[in-house]
Amino acid sequence: MKFEGRDVISIRDFSKEEILHILDVAEKMMPIAKGEKKSSLLNGYIMASLFFEPSTRTRLSFEAAMKRLGGGVIGFSQPGTTSMQKGESLADTIRTAESYCDVIVMRHPQEGSARMAAKFARVPVINGGDGAGHHPTQCLLDLFTIRMGKGKIEGNVVALLGDLKYGRTVHSLAYALALFGVDMIFISPKELQMPKEVVEECREMGVNIEIKNDIEDLSSVDVLYVTRIQKERFPDPEEYKKVAGSYRIDKETLKKAKEDMIIMHPLPRVDEISPEIDETKNAVYFKQTFNGVPVRMALLALVLGAIE
Amino acid sequence: MKFEGRDVISIRDFSKEEILHILDVAEKMMPIAKGEKKSSLLNGYIMASLFFEPSTRTRLSFEAAMKRLGGGVIGFSQPGTTSMQKGESLADTIRTAESYCDVIVMRHPQEGSARMAAKFARVPVINGGDGAGHHPTQCLLDLFTIRMGKGKIEGNVVALLGDLKYGRTVHSLAYALALFGVDMIFISPKELQMPKEVVEECREMGVNIEIKNDIEDLSSVDVLYVTRIQKERFPDPEEYKKVAGSYRIDKETLKKAKEDMIIMHPLPRVDEISPEIDETKNAVYFKQTFNGVPVRMALLALVLGAIE
Amino acid sequence: MKFEGRDVISIRDFSKEEILHILDVAEKMMPIAKGEKKSSLLNGYIMASLFFEPSTRTRLSFEAAMKRLGGGVIGFSQPGTTSMQKGESLADTIRTAESYCDVIVMRHPQEGSARMAAKFARVPVINGGDGAGHHPTQCLLDLFTIRMGKGKIEGNVVALLGDLKYGRTVHSLAYALALFGVDMIFISPKELQMPKEVVEECREMGVNIEIKNDIEDLSSVDVLYVTRIQKERFPDPEEYKKVAGSYRIDKETLKKAKEDMIIMHPLPRVDEISPEIDETKNAVYFKQTFNGVPVRMALLALVLGAIE
Repeated sequence: MKFEGRDVISIRDFSKEEILHILDVAEKMMPIAKGEKKSSLLNGYIMASLFFEPSTRTRLSFEAAMKRLGGGVIGFSQPGTTSMQKGESLADTIRTAESYCDVIVMRHPQEGSARMAAKFARVPVINGGDGAGHHPTQCLLDLFTIRMGKGKIEGNVVALLGDLKYGRTVHSLAYALALFGVDMIFISPKELQMPKEVVEECREMGVNIEIKNDIEDLSSVDVLYVTRIQKERFPDPEEYKKVAGSYRIDKETLKKAKEDMIIMHPLPRVDEISPEIDETKNAVYFKQTFNGVPVRMALLALVLGAIE
Repeated sequence: MKFEGRDVISIRDFSKEEILHILDVAEKMMPIAKGEKKSSLLNGYIMASLFFEPSTRTRLSFEAAMKRLGGGVIGFSQPGTTSMQKGESLADTIRTAESYCDVIVMRHPQEGSARMAAKFARVPVINGGDGAGHHPTQCLLDLFTIRMGKGKIEGNVVALLGDLKYGRTVHSLAYALALFGVDMIFISPKELQMPKEVVEECREMGVNIEIKNDIEDLSSVDVLYVTRIQKERFPDPEEYKKVAGSYRIDKETLKKAKEDMIIMHPLPRVDEISPEIDETKNAVYFKQTFNGVPVRMALLALVLGAIE
Repeated sequence: MKFEGRDVISIRDFSKEEILHILDVAEKMMPIAKGEKKSSLLNGYIMASLFFEPSTRTRLSFEAAMKRLGGGVIGFSQPGTTSMQKGESLADTIRTAESYCDVIVMRHPQEGSARMAAKFARVPVINGGDGAGHHPTQCLLDLFTIRMGKGKIEGNVVALLGDLKYGRTVHSLAYALALFGVDMIFISPKELQMPKEVVEECREMGVNIEIKNDIEDLSSVDVLYVTRIQKERFPDPEEYKKVAGSYRIDKETLKKAKEDMIIMHPLPRVDEISPEIDETKNAVYFKQTFNGVPVRMALLALVLGAIE
């Protein structure tokens, strides 16, 4: 198991053992992530944070991760300030950026762009989301949150809820959970069901998959993973309203669930989860957001070879 | 007097003793603010700088303050790069940001937003200006500048000049000066006079308030605080020109004033102060801008509990 | 030879001896620039990075330079976030920014703006490009790249190719190369020839200048410096296409050149150099980009007086 110099493009690039090792390192990072302990592990290292598409959450947590470990950050948060506007190719932008840093974190609207960047860069590239493609650090922090919340990943029943068709994060997460032998329930409106290939792959990996269109019965669910249903997916705004309303999680929903079911959400949320849930012990979505810091610290330290 | 963990939303949240303590700490920070002395007081700490509205001065001086003390900064300088565009509530944005940091500095166009953010955040929130609301760090650096320039705050006659109706900073400043027993002269065009409530409150606090519409006689003034008169306040551009012209400070104005009167301005200025004033010993507005650094260093160190 | 406190506005502000000293310091900075060695030389120092015009390359390499040396960076990457929008003069913006930092790096669309800023600032100002004016750090990194690639600057024949009329960097570079007694060939379409004054000045400085309109014979060239020909310079897009095509560097071009000729380009490139050149030993343009870091480290350390 060697991480130094590796790219982090897709969760599929990692074995189960490697994923567990990343989560173990992340757990050790917790006191530093919380600011309780100081670290100079990445002193003198520079991370280039290349956001060709805005993203508060991913960008800020990567930058916090780097800075908590004593490292420096350069970069941009919007494509408007880059030479790509002058017609420069992504390959050249990447080869330029890597001259200035030790590791690249990038987000790009185009699927496959992170893989391409990794091909050109000698320094490690971490994919912070490439359009409809991958978002491996989100997947890792989701797994980390399940493990922190339920003690372990395997043995839980995880329900993925919302837009399962277009939602970038849920496809990778389904794969990763299947890797850990986790049974899943896919709950979505008919128009936004999990793509057949994903369902089939999970079943081939040996896990039970149930498919549902409502949230009437959550009695077997240990982890409820909620995602945003985007208005833009519906031609008729009335239809959107009806659908969105019927998937909204509130205190009524909790009555149909196990007492210790945890509720996750990659955020930002709009109306999918009622604010009355925020203060319940079931809600872990703000912890989940925080978990992005230790997980990204672990990845940065690992690919930079500062930790094994 | 305890500062650790406290929010800084309005100058009214602080007693006279607390304000003086902040200014004392700021004075000790001077050599570090000037770069003459190095400090690692806030090593490992992270400040989130959330500017939902652009502001060079406030943002850069907060970031300089944090970095002079060895701390790290994450954040955004424009709302365009945040998930609020995806419909996220301010409460969620704040709860996300606080996962990544130890203290939040925010500027937001909406009055009351900083107070609301403070309600949701467990980490201290420092208000960097909330629309027509408060801007307490500006007020503190103004008081600091008066004390540095005149030796003390009390005992001076302070003239507030310009747009006293809409000017965010002058209402808080008037209150704070009254708290220190400072007599004031409010000088403005009739259309832009200090709101009655402010005048009354100051008088109830026991200080003398004089109201004027011209700058013909400044003979009793120790501190002249100039603010910008915005063109947009006048329906008729000719009327604006006339008014703005009659409040312009130049060398002629100085002849009507005490020799050691100091001239302040929160900046940016447009035409209110002639550049010929810049080199006089009366002009302290660039020092005032600089004073934002030690004052913000003091606040950051105090609310983070790094200093008492 | 004293660098502490000096502004870096134009390459013409430096003697040949001073330029060589900067390059010597840059060479010592190499291991730190590559991240192989850590440094805390500029710990506690703050650089203000004021980009009134976007520029990925110059901005990121200056920021990397500062951070590799342990320094902090504040600033903006787009004019939209500054108070200049409220009508503030450049002089005031500069005097504000300098309150918060030890050195200013600025890029501005207007020729002469850097010189003006330097007049107002007490801290050193480094010009990161002022419109059609100067870009001295580009010139220094170009010289550094020639020295690293060919062992020395003098004694080489350097061909400057492309838009020699409007190209900001080539005029300064021609002057600097003449200073080192380097013979040059100016190759460009007739519409984009090197201005007569530049040619005359170089000749007066005692170097041989040859003027060409094609790349048919490169047999005497040691360094081929390629620049972008901008579409906007041509009223007729067909004319542009024809011209651009006839100056494109590919493997065929290399056959007409010395085996050890190095190819430089300030980047970003569009179509001027075929990607097939990238992997040849002749291509040094990505090294050139990297060289911006050690050269800017040297300048920062020198003007801040952290090194002699």
